[in-house]
Amino acid sequence: MNAGLILDAAKAARVRALFNSMGAVHALSMRLDAMKVGRVTASMPIGEAVTQQNGTVHAGLTAALADTAGGLAAATLAPVEDNVLAVEFKINLLATAFGDRLRADASVVRGGRTITVCEIDVFAETAGKPDRHVARMQQTVIRVPPRAG
Amino acid sequence: MNAGLILDAAKAARVRALFNSMGAVHALSMRLDAMKVGRVTASMPIGEAVTQQNGTVHAGLTAALADTAGGLAAATLAPVEDNVLAVEFKINLLATAFGDRLRADASVVRGGRTITVCEIDVFAETAGKPDRHVARMQQTVIRVPPRAG
Amino acid sequence: MNAGLILDAAKAARVRALFNSMGAVHALSMRLDAMKVGRVTASMPIGEAVTQQNGTVHAGLTAALADTAGGLAAATLAPVEDNVLAVEFKINLLATAFGDRLRADASVVRGGRTITVCEIDVFAETAGKPDRHVARMQQTVIRVPPRAG
Amino acid sequence: MNAGLILDAAKAARVRALFNSMGAVHALSMRLDAMKVGRVTASMPIGEAVTQQNGTVHAGLTAALADTAGGLAAATLAPVEDNVLAVEFKINLLATAFGDRLRADASVVRGGRTITVCEIDVFAETAGKPDRHVARMQQTVIRVPPRAG
Repeated sequence: MNAGLILDAAKAARVRALFNSMGAVHALSMRLDAMKVGRVTASMPIGEAVTQQNGTVHAGLTAALADTAGGLAAATLAPVEDNVLAVEFKINLLATAFGDRLRADASVVRGGRTITVCEIDVFAETAGKPDRHVARMQQTVIRVPPRAG
Repeated sequence: MNAGLILDAAKAARVRALFNSMGAVHALSMRLDAMKVGRVTASMPIGEAVTQQNGTVHAGLTAALADTAGGLAAATLAPVEDNVLAVEFKINLLATAFGDRLRADASVVRGGRTITVCEIDVFAETAGKPDRHVARMQQTVIRVPPRAG
Repeated sequence: MNAGLILDAAKAARVRALFNSMGAVHALSMRLDAMKVGRVTASMPIGEAVTQQNGTVHAGLTAALADTAGGLAAATLAPVEDNVLAVEFKINLLATAFGDRLRADASVVRGGRTITVCEIDVFAETAGKPDRHVARMQQTVIRVPPRAG
Repeated sequence: MNAGLILDAAKAARVRALFNSMGAVHALSMRLDAMKVGRVTASMPIGEAVTQQNGTVHAGLTAALADTAGGLAAATLAPVEDNVLAVEFKINLLATAFGDRLRADASVVRGGRTITVCEIDVFAETAGKPDRHVARMQQTVIRVPPRAG
């Protein structure tokens, strides 16, 4: 799948359009930081709106960022006219997440014609400190071609 | 574990306090609808802020609601002084989620001294229509006792 | 999907043929105990060959039984000419498994045209004792139609 | 956690003893190929006893190998007196598995005092051909200290 190569312009535009079309992306101020073939990095600020009981990032919102990055990584390999939808995902929370930003690095483990499997590592970034690895997701995405007209 | 019985007042207060202490709960306007021993129902309105590309609810925000309800269901069985944290969860998205509200029904499958396993079913509610079953989560929660002083 | 109804003869024959065609089924002496629309029960004896370090059933072999029952439950809903394959599954081990037999009760949570989601509960049976709930699996199955000739 | 370093003799003996104490290991002719701090490779021959309907390796038995390797990788980091048990795992089947042997490469993603998270990649090996990546597992293991006497 030529993982890591530069995306062609049409695919890059498609991935960016997908990202921008999500209401949750804007509500959470997510940013699409980087994309290559089979790889996407997205991030969001850590603020009050994404916390759980102990002031650290809510496991579910960590999942929302990771799921977004993974779906887009799958989209880098799909025909531009296809939709991509998460069938399921599983996430382990590895450490409490706090700091300035949360970053998700997604990469495709296996890209198939129908099913794509991604892994996503989530890191908490704090100015002046090393990144902390806070979550790992394994995600299954399905391509949905447009219906025949 | 006497699943389904009424919670005693101290436990109910603890679960409600946990819920209210989460920033994400307020940001997403989540509501704690019901709680019994081993069971919690929570819901949130479906609006622009929780959508993904096709205008349906973002898989990650569906997960955020389900994870919240499951963690609280685990808390109904834990000592009030313990914290409860998601170790991991896995969610299958069963159908596109749209409508007025999203509701998560969480119940404890197995409550242990350290590890609690929950299942959470998520439904999309639309006025005048039957509920749609949109997701199923299986979640692992760990109890964290307060540190010895 | 008429869950729980009696399977028609062609579908029942198909499910039984699938079961019997698996080498692992014979190696582990699995038994197909019951099948209805969307539901399958399978079991296997607990012996030395399926144990892990503490003499209880190996988590992986518990998974093998559960995965088999789930795949067959999905097959009860698929066209008889389709193959059914596990895309992925997730299993929680709820209690140590020991006794005479291990039984997996599989049911379809959501049957779609391409993707079927099953849940499988695994119980350890011991003569004269109540069943013990030892595992819960959530499984994603894909239908693979025969290739056009 | 010094991942990749050589195991000290006591730990290596402990991991080997755990492996050899599992009945399933012998029934499936599993082999412990390599171990370092936080990493274990195990393999088994592909034969009739591990197949599913299409003659390829049964998803459940692929999981059994991967789960075994992951549990042992977790054990390389645990005190020798502790037991290690799978809390849960999730596996994606990436490609049909056939050939001579199945190999699982397990590594610890995050080792904690109570919970260890592993990832395990499974490859099918055929003489004279490149390895095929057939499965990816994400696994949660818990350490169980010996009971106070």
